[in-house]
Amino acid sequence: MSPAKKSIIVPGFKFSGVSAGIKKTKKKDIALIFSETRAVIAGVFTTNKIKAAPVKFDIKRIRRRRKSQAIIINSGNANACTGLQGLKDTKEMAEITAKQLGIPSELVYVASTGYIGRPLPMQKIKKTIPKAVKKLSPRAIKEAASAIITTDTFPKIFSRMINIDGKKGTIAGIAKGAGMICPNMATMLSFIVTDIAVESRALNSALREAVKKSFNRLTIDNDMSTNDTVLIMANGRLKNTPIKKGSPVYRIFENALSEAAYNLSKMIALDGEGATKLIEVVVKGAKTESDAEKAAKSIANSLLVKTAVYGKSPNWGRIMAAIGYSGIEISEQKINISLNNLKLVNKGIGVKQAPKNLFLKKEITITADLGLGKKEAKVLTCDLTEKYVKINASYSA
Amino acid sequence: MSPAKKSIIVPGFKFSGVSAGIKKTKKKDIALIFSETRAVIAGVFTTNKIKAAPVKFDIKRIRRRRKSQAIIINSGNANACTGLQGLKDTKEMAEITAKQLGIPSELVYVASTGYIGRPLPMQKIKKTIPKAVKKLSPRAIKEAASAIITTDTFPKIFSRMINIDGKKGTIAGIAKGAGMICPNMATMLSFIVTDIAVESRALNSALREAVKKSFNRLTIDNDMSTNDTVLIMANGRLKNTPIKKGSPVYRIFENALSEAAYNLSKMIALDGEGATKLIEVVVKGAKTESDAEKAAKSIANSLLVKTAVYGKSPNWGRIMAAIGYSGIEISEQKINISLNNLKLVNKGIGVKQAPKNLFLKKEITITADLGLGKKEAKVLTCDLTEKYVKINASYSA
Repeated sequence: MSPAKKSIIVPGFKFSGVSAGIKKTKKKDIALIFSETRAVIAGVFTTNKIKAAPVKFDIKRIRRRRKSQAIIINSGNANACTGLQGLKDTKEMAEITAKQLGIPSELVYVASTGYIGRPLPMQKIKKTIPKAVKKLSPRAIKEAASAIITTDTFPKIFSRMINIDGKKGTIAGIAKGAGMICPNMATMLSFIVTDIAVESRALNSALREAVKKSFNRLTIDNDMSTNDTVLIMANGRLKNTPIKKGSPVYRIFENALSEAAYNLSKMIALDGEGATKLIEVVVKGAKTESDAEKAAKSIANSLLVKTAVYGKSPNWGRIMAAIGYSGIEISEQKINISLNNLKLVNKGIGVKQAPKNLFLKKEITITADLGLGKKEAKVLTCDLTEKYVKINASYSA
Repeated sequence: MSPAKKSIIVPGFKFSGVSAGIKKTKKKDIALIFSETRAVIAGVFTTNKIKAAPVKFDIKRIRRRRKSQAIIINSGNANACTGLQGLKDTKEMAEITAKQLGIPSELVYVASTGYIGRPLPMQKIKKTIPKAVKKLSPRAIKEAASAIITTDTFPKIFSRMINIDGKKGTIAGIAKGAGMICPNMATMLSFIVTDIAVESRALNSALREAVKKSFNRLTIDNDMSTNDTVLIMANGRLKNTPIKKGSPVYRIFENALSEAAYNLSKMIALDGEGATKLIEVVVKGAKTESDAEKAAKSIANSLLVKTAVYGKSPNWGRIMAAIGYSGIEISEQKINISLNNLKLVNKGIGVKQAPKNLFLKKEITITADLGLGKKEAKVLTCDLTEKYVKINASYSA
């Protein structure tokens, strides 16, 4: 989970990250991901009914054809609630990128993140896309990761290698998160690339499974953005037999992809706006996975639980209350709660107050066993601090 | 909405507020409300599946018989997640109070608020109940209001008179709120008394209607407590013909009760932990009232909206996003949004950024017109500040 890795290379892919001056600072704000050959693409998007222009654009594009060669991303401006002009601008971003790369425009996808409701500064963007193309390099994934972040404090990159048909394939991903992250992905962008050959249907299904268990079980403030996008490109450079859904190797690929997505999610939670701690909420002993997930999200979204962790206060009553209002059936006298493996609640009654040194760790695990069944779910979040308020009270670009 | 009113008298009722030392400070923490004659009682309680001992006790009691003469309340300890001992302690509180007042024990109701998971300090409480009885006075509603608060910064009292059968009846209520307030009432206690004669069924129905439009449309942090309780006692001292459900005078009574409940709710929102502003979210133009309520609660619960108001930032994109993820059907290009009557969004697109002086007022109204129908709903909340985090990170008694 180190935030920066050196020289991650995924055969056939190039990256760049440059500054167009969209952000008030001179930080990087245009990222480009390019596959030298046509790749299979799959995507998962925000379920918010208000969708940013690039999200509408990508959804339309991906429905028609599951091929791509490039993703152009800007940060600093979400291009959301910008009406027809917003859609026009997105289309133009794709067209300029395609022209500069010498590829058909329909192979380009677009993503934006940042402030809502302002038109994109297209002059700046037009001038900068050629620079992003010029800077493309197989070793620049970190630059791209830096260019997609907004209030994140570090770029998020994860990669791993897996054996496919006796060959070493790579899965690498970048993500941005920080604020507005909620159970159903909220301003959360993630772009994953792999040289493994995967059939379109298999790629789509593996991505959905991975997102369900990672980005969709991640909550910072329960706000869901207009811009959430997860895209994966598989260019097949590994020259393995393309992975089919349901095959044994599909399971291996899906697990590796889920692991990548989960690790990126952990980085996002750890880097939640103002966060000082990563909180992993595990609810087990539930009758159904859906019950476990509801209870876990209820705990993870409780401002009282989040402030208690921040305040190093082992206030398990707040955890009990959050389970109680989660909407699922429970039996108070069957509930056990632990914090980092120290039991706080036994059969619904407090055992002891956790010692403060429990909170020295950067990662806190809250485990609630409902004592009703065998299903479980895990949700990631972070603590709530004064700094979160400060960041969001003053955020304007 | 002045926080303190002088000498509110409700014929036949006496009040007191004393200190038992349950709170770490020497502040009042035992309140007693007493009706000289048997009163009709109605109640609404938390829907959290984890219920505090006094809530379980009152629910059981009120199911059997709708009569009461006293309510004994302690603050500083919620008597929640305290198992059988908790129920025993609640029962004992009722018994001691009854004995001291010389009334049957089954006419006493109990409420608690404060820290979860610690046994009540019964020695202190036993010693103090006689003092509370001794101090009873028709003019001491403010003392009772002060004794039920926890992190509230001011006692909450509202009263009004209404004409019933040509006679002047009084409705007076006290409340506590501050943290853990959410759409379905969360540590929110309110006790309302009236000298108007109301039939049991009518009182029950009027209370439910009033709570639906007030305490249940109030959200501070979307956490729902284990202890929420609203009780109303009607002692009939006015000697009017007891109000029947459906009669013309019933409507007058219900409106007055709703007004009292709404005003107490406003005081709770204004006094949300760390709050600097009261936010009234009005969603209109909805197809159904339930849609309007969902959208209004989604806006009111958005940490991003709440921090934006605190930061005096007219960030309407966050309001749009919250409507978008509220789960209701919308049409982006039909939405209009105003802040204190200044239009920010016209047909889904930003008109202008609101001037900062919009935020000089202590009360902010966010109005969203969905443009789809004629139904509306109003939800009360407050801004989210660093102080909320500070209070809840350190709260321990």
